[in-house]
Amino acid sequence: MTVTLHVCITCRAGETPSEGEATPGKRLHGAILDAGVPDGVAVVPVECLSACSQGCSVAISAPGRWSYVYGRLSEAHANDVVAGAAAYAAAPDGLVPWRSRPEIFRKQSLARIPPIAVVPEAAE
Amino acid sequence: MTVTLHVCITCRAGETPSEGEATPGKRLHGAILDAGVPDGVAVVPVECLSACSQGCSVAISAPGRWSYVYGRLSEAHANDVVAGAAAYAAAPDGLVPWRSRPEIFRKQSLARIPPIAVVPEAAE
Repeated sequence: MTVTLHVCITCRAGETPSEGEATPGKRLHGAILDAGVPDGVAVVPVECLSACSQGCSVAISAPGRWSYVYGRLSEAHANDVVAGAAAYAAAPDGLVPWRSRPEIFRKQSLARIPPIAVVPEAAE
Repeated sequence: MTVTLHVCITCRAGETPSEGEATPGKRLHGAILDAGVPDGVAVVPVECLSACSQGCSVAISAPGRWSYVYGRLSEAHANDVVAGAAAYAAAPDGLVPWRSRPEIFRKQSLARIPPIAVVPEAAE
């Protein structure tokens, strides 16, 4: 299964970039691409994950799986983000054993959301 | 479309409940049920949304829509949570105009996650 790694590229992470300077979010996105995107992971830039006070942030999700949002990231974490995303993609159900998660995925979780259920509509 | 409102029932929100005492998360869940669950919203208890430092928390999601996680909630917010969930359910695409969201949904967002895309697998 291909999983999606959303990277917030508008995040300023408390900085005030000069005109023309890349935001911390864009730098994180670039560093993730430079780190090498593993098979089974699609990196998708997104404008704002609404975690602005905890930026930079990324979200990882896939159909039928728990979604996870991680924060307080910088481009220095790119390799760990990629490793964590690869582990999530490789786990048959997306549930990576706790000890196999990179430290940033253990300590910098902002939230997780259960798999999105298709709730049967009530009979009319 | 029926949307899902997940409520973290294990959240202690910094409290240390006595034995047998309901956690703040369970109290929030109960208050939401008491507030009256609107049509189109399924309230589902969940053990941990991994937003423990920002509890209590809820997540709202539906297939093909942005998911949202809100935190720093208590049972006093139950009516607002229900109102916000109803607005999300009623909006054709789940995108509720900013001013129509309850204040807690404007100010206590922990994160949002884009709709989960089904990424086509590469040809073998």
